Amino acid sequence: MMDQPGNPIDTVESPGLHLSRRRFIVTSSTSLAGAVVAGPAAAGSLAEVPPREPGADLSAHSERSKFVKIGRIPEAGPGKRNVDPSDAINSKTPLDRLVGGLTPTDLHYERSHAGVPELDPAKHRLLIHGMVQKPLVLSVNDLKAMPSISRIVFIECTGNGWENWKTADENLTVQNTHGLVSTNEWTGVPLKFLVGLVARDRASNWMLAEGGDAAGVDRSIPLTDEILNEAFIAYGQNGEPLRPAHGFPMRLVMPGFEGNLNIKWLRRLKFGDQPWMTRWETARYTQLLANGKAEQFQLRMGTNSVITSPSGMMEIRPGYNCITGLAWSGYGKIANVEISTDGARSWKPAELNNSVLPKAQTRFQMDWVWDGKPTKIVSRATDEKGNVQPDRKSFIAQEGTNALFHYHAQQTWSIDAAGRVRNALA
Amino acid sequence: MMDQPGNPIDTVESPGLHLSRRRFIVTSSTSLAGAVVAGPAAAGSLAEVPPREPGADLSAHSERSKFVKIGRIPEAGPGKRNVDPSDAINSKTPLDRLVGGLTPTDLHYERSHAGVPELDPAKHRLLIHGMVQKPLVLSVNDLKAMPSISRIVFIECTGNGWENWKTADENLTVQNTHGLVSTNEWTGVPLKFLVGLVARDRASNWMLAEGGDAAGVDRSIPLTDEILNEAFIAYGQNGEPLRPAHGFPMRLVMPGFEGNLNIKWLRRLKFGDQPWMTRWETARYTQLLANGKAEQFQLRMGTNSVITSPSGMMEIRPGYNCITGLAWSGYGKIANVEISTDGARSWKPAELNNSVLPKAQTRFQMDWVWDGKPTKIVSRATDEKGNVQPDRKSFIAQEGTNALFHYHAQQTWSIDAAGRVRNALA
Repeated sequence: MMDQPGNPIDTVESPGLHLSRRRFIVTSSTSLAGAVVAGPAAAGSLAEVPPREPGADLSAHSERSKFVKIGRIPEAGPGKRNVDPSDAINSKTPLDRLVGGLTPTDLHYERSHAGVPELDPAKHRLLIHGMVQKPLVLSVNDLKAMPSISRIVFIECTGNGWENWKTADENLTVQNTHGLVSTNEWTGVPLKFLVGLVARDRASNWMLAEGGDAAGVDRSIPLTDEILNEAFIAYGQNGEPLRPAHGFPMRLVMPGFEGNLNIKWLRRLKFGDQPWMTRWETARYTQLLANGKAEQFQLRMGTNSVITSPSGMMEIRPGYNCITGLAWSGYGKIANVEISTDGARSWKPAELNNSVLPKAQTRFQMDWVWDGKPTKIVSRATDEKGNVQPDRKSFIAQEGTNALFHYHAQQTWSIDAAGRVRNALA
Repeated sequence: MMDQPGNPIDTVESPGLHLSRRRFIVTSSTSLAGAVVAGPAAAGSLAEVPPREPGADLSAHSERSKFVKIGRIPEAGPGKRNVDPSDAINSKTPLDRLVGGLTPTDLHYERSHAGVPELDPAKHRLLIHGMVQKPLVLSVNDLKAMPSISRIVFIECTGNGWENWKTADENLTVQNTHGLVSTNEWTGVPLKFLVGLVARDRASNWMLAEGGDAAGVDRSIPLTDEILNEAFIAYGQNGEPLRPAHGFPMRLVMPGFEGNLNIKWLRRLKFGDQPWMTRWETARYTQLLANGKAEQFQLRMGTNSVITSPSGMMEIRPGYNCITGLAWSGYGKIANVEISTDGARSWKPAELNNSVLPKAQTRFQMDWVWDGKPTKIVSRATDEKGNVQPDRKSFIAQEGTNALFHYHAQQTWSIDAAGRVRNALA
């Protein structure tokens, strides 16, 4: 039954296995490969002696190593860091410390308007009413008994990137600048299925979704075909029940659309034929344009990317550096990512090195040999619909500087002669 | 910028959105839909009143709800449950409590031979030597500086299913019978890249991988093209550093192959031209065949599936039930899953309702209206290479009953007139 060496089974499709080792070895022959041999060799040519005593007992849960310190940073809004926890309104994912495409469940970013309620799933109900023939009240168990889907998708706060809209604090990390986006696998009941169950009036083309926290966040959602086909009511997150901070016991998931539309602690869906103009779409989550008018319902998250290493507040050395980062788009799959190491003058294609899924974060990387001279590095994503992530200049030319949401211009990191990496506007 | 209702953007590819709502509504019109309206309606037609006070402060980590109790079960081998933790050799994933395709990081199954060591990543080293031109000693930071890949793959203990090889304890849950398989996203350096770096002798077609725990588990791995293209040295798990129980700070990941080959706490890779015949591949991890001979190096995990709901020790009611479960194959992608609700006499296709990735667990589901009569339910997976999961009879006819590993016959759950679901051999 064994597969003989030299008699291999066909190689199956898998991501990232087209790595440019040959190119890497050539470019790194004077840097990494040398450093690898020399560095550890100086500390002895053999690995550490393994322990001779059995380790800890097996357990019910695999906790983190005591050597791993990793957490989010609660903040109170743009520029409002190091605040009292009771003033925090969001808590950012440490993108600079993470690898791959998924976000650890307990590090998925948080954004809430009245803290985190702990709802009793035995008591919680979802009311579905309005322009429907059969209004329903559903329990969590009712939902779990229905057919479900599971999707790996990003959710992004519409405020992600707001730190860099007007000025660039050079002392920001990528957690500070881009930590309001995360990717998890969500499981739940398709909206389309529930729409059928309540027999929605065909004239209804809007839906109100309301959360069960003290803020009662509610948003009007247009029932486009795309949204009807893709939205779902989730009760599962990375295989387990939702965490309270992420909407336990149920939330709306709206792949590709503003985080605040992914209503947490969901308690009500109402169908109608026009938007409700809630305070969340009049006082908040509108865009103040350059001409002083406000734009409402700018729902879809743009095509975006950021280099996570090297990134803000890191230090690099001359020679080989593997540039890596994340790209995502509310329009679908990432088609390609380009990287510039000369301040957006020239661009090279990056490799995509995880499974490229629609509306999920895609990990990219590129070999780079730094010559030690000051420069700027930038990434630029293109999605399958042909949308190209804009540079800052053209983004600001279109959006002005009054707004706060949907900033997705290319992120520039400057590198000085000492290898210090800092946040920069371009 | 808003997408107008009635003017939708093209729908992008996404899994599971072809759900058979129409069929579901027809079949469930006398069961679920009725129950949903009647049940909660009796408890009041409106959802619970939301809290009026702000919830908990935002935090550095999103912990589980106090209402969610979910954990693994440490065991001491086939039939050896409820043991002292110090006697446990594995800890099983609660498949009956999980949804979707991913396993929560802290619930990924554990299997170890000398407990869980807590290695210091600053001191740990990986030695690569043997038939190579440039032996290397690598630190964790050396690995992290190299190009990487991220893959969502299952890892499965070769003993998964051993509870049902000879007899079927009817009081087992699916956690007991199948809880030694899990799916996570792993990130690390491709083996092929390291092979290039050390300049492997072309005559070397075997590799020894050795773990840094007190047991020093080591296995010989044939360097087929498939393994050279797909194996990698992982330092990341679901976005974060490996957990100690899963190999921190580095482990081998061998997509599709025996869990014990995915050497944890990896300290050494040695290249050679024949297997080393370690005790782990002579005294253990060989298969005692019906004729008394032992089969070695049965490395690849077979095509497998199991219904996780309804499953062992659950109770169901007549009427609509959504059958769901997981399928996986060491050969590649799952092509289809069929379900029988009449004890393997007739089969119907299940829906695959997450992203189908090679060598990852695929979630399947099927609508079923139970008539209340005793029956048996079974699932059967087929992979993209055409491998069909065998029924128990043909599996035993081929493998005999002396063996312990690689049991992957179809799993039968019997259901009695009271709706009690129990483990059965066929």
